[in-house]
Amino acid sequence: MFAPLQNDSFLRACLRQATPHTPVWLMRQAGRYLPEYRATRAKAGSFMGLATNTDYATEVTLQPLERYPLDAAILFSDILTVPDAMGLGLSFALGEGPKFASPVRDEAAVARLQVPDMNKLRYVFDAVTSIRKALQGRVPLIGFSGSPWTLACYMVEGAGSDDYRLVKTMLYQRPDLLHQMLAINADAVAAYLNAQIDAGAQAVMIFDSWGGVLSDAAFHEFSLAYTRRVLAQLKRAHEGVTIPRLVFTKGGGLWLEVMGRLDCEVLGLDWTVNLGQARARVGEHGPHPKALQGNLDPNVLFAKPAQIEAEVAHVLNSFGTPHSDASQSGPTHIFNLGHGISQHTPPESVEVLVNAVHAHSRSMRAARA
Amino acid sequence: MFAPLQNDSFLRACLRQATPHTPVWLMRQAGRYLPEYRATRAKAGSFMGLATNTDYATEVTLQPLERYPLDAAILFSDILTVPDAMGLGLSFALGEGPKFASPVRDEAAVARLQVPDMNKLRYVFDAVTSIRKALQGRVPLIGFSGSPWTLACYMVEGAGSDDYRLVKTMLYQRPDLLHQMLAINADAVAAYLNAQIDAGAQAVMIFDSWGGVLSDAAFHEFSLAYTRRVLAQLKRAHEGVTIPRLVFTKGGGLWLEVMGRLDCEVLGLDWTVNLGQARARVGEHGPHPKALQGNLDPNVLFAKPAQIEAEVAHVLNSFGTPHSDASQSGPTHIFNLGHGISQHTPPESVEVLVNAVHAHSRSMRAARA
Repeated sequence: MFAPLQNDSFLRACLRQATPHTPVWLMRQAGRYLPEYRATRAKAGSFMGLATNTDYATEVTLQPLERYPLDAAILFSDILTVPDAMGLGLSFALGEGPKFASPVRDEAAVARLQVPDMNKLRYVFDAVTSIRKALQGRVPLIGFSGSPWTLACYMVEGAGSDDYRLVKTMLYQRPDLLHQMLAINADAVAAYLNAQIDAGAQAVMIFDSWGGVLSDAAFHEFSLAYTRRVLAQLKRAHEGVTIPRLVFTKGGGLWLEVMGRLDCEVLGLDWTVNLGQARARVGEHGPHPKALQGNLDPNVLFAKPAQIEAEVAHVLNSFGTPHSDASQSGPTHIFNLGHGISQHTPPESVEVLVNAVHAHSRSMRAARA
Repeated sequence: MFAPLQNDSFLRACLRQATPHTPVWLMRQAGRYLPEYRATRAKAGSFMGLATNTDYATEVTLQPLERYPLDAAILFSDILTVPDAMGLGLSFALGEGPKFASPVRDEAAVARLQVPDMNKLRYVFDAVTSIRKALQGRVPLIGFSGSPWTLACYMVEGAGSDDYRLVKTMLYQRPDLLHQMLAINADAVAAYLNAQIDAGAQAVMIFDSWGGVLSDAAFHEFSLAYTRRVLAQLKRAHEGVTIPRLVFTKGGGLWLEVMGRLDCEVLGLDWTVNLGQARARVGEHGPHPKALQGNLDPNVLFAKPAQIEAEVAHVLNSFGTPHSDASQSGPTHIFNLGHGISQHTPPESVEVLVNAVHAHSRSMRAARA
């Protein structure tokens, strides 16, 4: 059904297999910093008009790949499609973040929640299949969802928040309600990601964007436990091919020891973490050794080319040289930003970044050989 | 000049001396959650009208002490008074954060910066003396400032920010300019805190509110190095009495090992950190052993009394029992929130919290005795 994969460096690195260079892709790589994205969005009329139209979603997913030699594509969608399918009414005002028409703030609203009919998310699965076909095997396609906790943040707050007061009030005052919501979210996210895998996603990523706002104890109980519940339900393979699972907790650097034991293949890291220290803390000898993904500050892309190259080299060097023996598994690094790319980024900075990752990571391998 | 101190539990705990209970105060304890604060602010007309008037500043500093048996008072002021004195024009629109009329964004603006004449901050020092007198020795008075990096964030951005794009653009593109600004900020903050000590502050705290938004390498170079430059210039004692120095980096949990070596007495911690683990990571045997301060999530105060008590006990228990031998120094804990109290907090929740800290920490000591 799909063309054979030509560049498998991302998938190999996810599975801790040697690659000739460090693969690179960027969170939100299809986005507002690209003039061609803004043109497509203008045609679509709204963010949801863009995300729900298979042709537009395919078009914008491929846009950054036309410009840059990226090693993976990521589905163009939003982390909040699942609660939208639950009936909460997702919208995006221009220049603002997501908003839910019907936030979930009391017992009655939680009682109404259920795992949505996956047919309501058909537009996502259709986009996955369409993008996968359009890629013609150039690079693998990553599917994704928000984490159960991150979905709950938006579902209760109704929008972004500075202090997460409403969802944390529920957490401390009615933990039973929040647990009920998180269990539904976890089962819905698992079904959603499995359907993306069936539709053609070659890896899946869970974005725990707001795990880092929790106290140590609450992170374990309300975020990590439900990420685990998702992972336990995910397909390990599709048609005989392993499907790597990536988990990214923004602000999760404090919890790397426990996240190192998650049953997944890759941990995404933000820029607050030193990659070399992270490698030591995650560990490489447990039942679930990890590849690490990250972690350049997106603001580096506002610097001059030579400065971007120096910061890229700093990130690659802080991880250290990945292993090079194709017959064994060992430490691997996937280069990414520590968070989504800024809409204000000059597109030419991305070219500098991608080329620098490829060139410097090849020279690191050559220096060792 | 000032009345003798009656409740020295906060100062003793700062110096790792035994206390009969764990002392407690709350960041932003004089603030909008109190109706009497809102009444005084309405009289003053504006936040700066309040902060620059000695009588009003004294009145609001003492308001929470009238309600709750807190163990310390903190000067009512703002972390950004120093750049205001540099001529940047600080203001606060009602319901919004701070704003500078003249942000510092280019070489010419940086070149104009200098350590301000401390006479421009006379209103702060007058407030310190007035508050210290009004306290009549009930509890000690804490002075404070923003850290050099946190001041620079606001000075460059001109206001709060989601992504710190402008200050980080300077950081990556013109690190020389940022270093120049940070050196001036550090010397200004040191002079400012020393003048607060001369005026009567019995401890001083540096708020590095935005240290946690930096990459690992940038935190060391642009935040911590300048906190260190402030600490190196601070008075150790005033009229023969030791002046404890507290450093709080929001989101600084990743860097506790290096912060444990700072030349100060107390580290403040936000709620993402487990206090028991923090104690082990900070270490207790270096040249600068630390007391730890924190770290309840302020959102706990939206829960019911029994739930607040349980969360207070959880924080106290996670630190563990402080030592009890008054003749020696050893691990001590100062209870606080992990960040400023929310303006939406029910005032009666604060009473529950303060009483729970005192009662539970006494029972912990009794259980061990």
